[in-house]
Amino acid sequence: MLTREGCQERRQRLWSQLPADTQWVLVADPRHVYYLSGFLVQPLSFSVGERGWLLLERNGPATLLADNFTRRSAVAPPHVDAEELETWYDHRHSVINRDHALLAALKRVAGRLLDRPGIIEEEALPLHASGYLPDAVGEFSCGEADEGAQWHTLGSVLRRLRRNKHADEVATLERAMRACAAGHAAALATVAPGITEFEVYQAIHAAVLAEARHPVQIYGDFRSTNRATPKRGGAPTDQVLAEGDLLLLDYSVIVDGYRSDFTNTVSAGPPSPEVQRMFDACHEALQAGAAALRPGVRAVDIYETVAAPLRQSGWGDTFTHHAGHGLGLAHPEPPILVAESADVLEAGDVVTLEPGLYGPGVGGIRLEHNYLLTETGARCLSPHELRLTLP
Amino acid sequence: MLTREGCQERRQRLWSQLPADTQWVLVADPRHVYYLSGFLVQPLSFSVGERGWLLLERNGPATLLADNFTRRSAVAPPHVDAEELETWYDHRHSVINRDHALLAALKRVAGRLLDRPGIIEEEALPLHASGYLPDAVGEFSCGEADEGAQWHTLGSVLRRLRRNKHADEVATLERAMRACAAGHAAALATVAPGITEFEVYQAIHAAVLAEARHPVQIYGDFRSTNRATPKRGGAPTDQVLAEGDLLLLDYSVIVDGYRSDFTNTVSAGPPSPEVQRMFDACHEALQAGAAALRPGVRAVDIYETVAAPLRQSGWGDTFTHHAGHGLGLAHPEPPILVAESADVLEAGDVVTLEPGLYGPGVGGIRLEHNYLLTETGARCLSPHELRLTLP
Repeated sequence: MLTREGCQERRQRLWSQLPADTQWVLVADPRHVYYLSGFLVQPLSFSVGERGWLLLERNGPATLLADNFTRRSAVAPPHVDAEELETWYDHRHSVINRDHALLAALKRVAGRLLDRPGIIEEEALPLHASGYLPDAVGEFSCGEADEGAQWHTLGSVLRRLRRNKHADEVATLERAMRACAAGHAAALATVAPGITEFEVYQAIHAAVLAEARHPVQIYGDFRSTNRATPKRGGAPTDQVLAEGDLLLLDYSVIVDGYRSDFTNTVSAGPPSPEVQRMFDACHEALQAGAAALRPGVRAVDIYETVAAPLRQSGWGDTFTHHAGHGLGLAHPEPPILVAESADVLEAGDVVTLEPGLYGPGVGGIRLEHNYLLTETGARCLSPHELRLTLP
Repeated sequence: MLTREGCQERRQRLWSQLPADTQWVLVADPRHVYYLSGFLVQPLSFSVGERGWLLLERNGPATLLADNFTRRSAVAPPHVDAEELETWYDHRHSVINRDHALLAALKRVAGRLLDRPGIIEEEALPLHASGYLPDAVGEFSCGEADEGAQWHTLGSVLRRLRRNKHADEVATLERAMRACAAGHAAALATVAPGITEFEVYQAIHAAVLAEARHPVQIYGDFRSTNRATPKRGGAPTDQVLAEGDLLLLDYSVIVDGYRSDFTNTVSAGPPSPEVQRMFDACHEALQAGAAALRPGVRAVDIYETVAAPLRQSGWGDTFTHHAGHGLGLAHPEPPILVAESADVLEAGDVVTLEPGLYGPGVGGIRLEHNYLLTETGARCLSPHELRLTLP
């Protein structure tokens, strides 16, 4: 749950990034409205896909714009100073176009915007809003012109700010991670020859729900691999696990907008020595990467640190994906831990490390933990066990 | 699953609604992109919240615009003639702003648009796209000017078209309804004094998954009512059901974008005579409404038909919500079955009827079925049992 203090701190950080003469900001991406105000449409509600907008004014109120039913579908009361809610549906009259109700909410505050310099989130605000807004406020420069001012969009600035997770964000991430870990524990207790991928998914889903105590979203890879097909991903199927098949469980749980993303690979029956070697190589790579995480380290160096033990395993050619990435309200998000990354780690980053090997004639292994970058290193956030089978 | 034929028919219907000189249409609402092309981002995927756009050209190709990873998250291959996919992420380089990749996909086709009259979906296309588009193409008129031309937006025209469900849409709705009905059957077998709302929700969720054989979204009301609190809605809690409590289960299951919406109310232990009378009144109202459904009937008359038996029950003052509404890719959508509706039923409408009574000192009952309007009447689509308890 995002807190009032967290939202206020994030709004202060946003203002500090904007030109000094900017008097207002209109935020439209649902993730950013949530990030700055705590207003999130419950994705498991009849309002899924609907939106609210957030108007911030310098030294003035934070105002939520929405239709009345979208507002009712909020996961929690928003941390704003004012709300402009347009009645869309009243249980008495016909309705057609819900988007026009949101536009009407904007119209109510438009008079406050036209004569003052402001910035809109041009990546997400729809074109029919343009009639109520001054021209050309989507891009802006920071820094002095003679020092080479940089041009930005609000969407990019906010994505940059999102790297530095606040305490309320980390707490929400940890709720998602506890639920995700319960699913991994259930998978370890369930996987056996003869069961289907979908049945394991059902057991995971039930365990995640039981831990979360709230409707949640779960997505990711729930597919089995084997000697013939060492790499596979996507939704679970009715495929029956055979002795020695490996179920690669790389999935996310979303709680209040924030997502976990961690993996374990479970063997149906005892693993072969090659599978165990592959698992050990991934485990070594993960530990090496985790030990290297600290602010100031380049993402390319984390990538190399993770890749080195995988290369030494003999299956290194099969490690073709990223070593990890940032996560939070989306995934992947910066920093991106890849061979040609331009990113440098910072305190407040939440990242995942996910070494994987997919050996022809053996099968696929991926292991993954999530970490919060601290001032001096990193703290592991994902509380699951990495193991092929229960003892 | 939407079919190629269905998408082509819907595109033809759209063209028939547009001015004769319109050469292209740019569709941006994710529901409408799906409706016309079958391209839907799997909501249970890491790309949840991302979008593609659809460019339609008169007597020309249908082109999907997307980033490479959004395309990979499609629920099914899209029914288009061409795809312009911008590489957003390649597992080698840093990325920040995914919205800019979608914009780059638009830039590739922009040269085809600037000199020809076209229409954009101004309700959903973001402002940063405006640089690649000719001015002022969000609203358009149909009909001759001297006959009083009507002004429309693309979003409103598409919502109007969506009322008339095609065969592939009805088939998808029926998949959602079978899964939803499995949940209602599980609830009837589970509800008893001593169980919590959340435990019933867990049983429903497991049964829906088992029937759907695919990850699904479920949302709605899973709350109990009683003498003291006869009306309540929302997500399930840890509240323990007492003898005689009524669990009002009004929930939707979304399968491939289309949603069911039907209700049963289950009694924890034997119902009192008052509860049974309330149930019987709702059942009579539902049957009366269903018998009245046919093309050409006014929505207000359906409302009155449903309301009459409720009024006669003595608890009629507590029926303060709609008698029903259309459903499909969203809900509520036209026709809206309320006291002052302007709508008239048409063949192809899919509607729900949901009489409810919430008697002080008794508890709350709501019953609901979903119907497809045929040429001569209506066919019930929801296969669940309406009953307070198992025999």
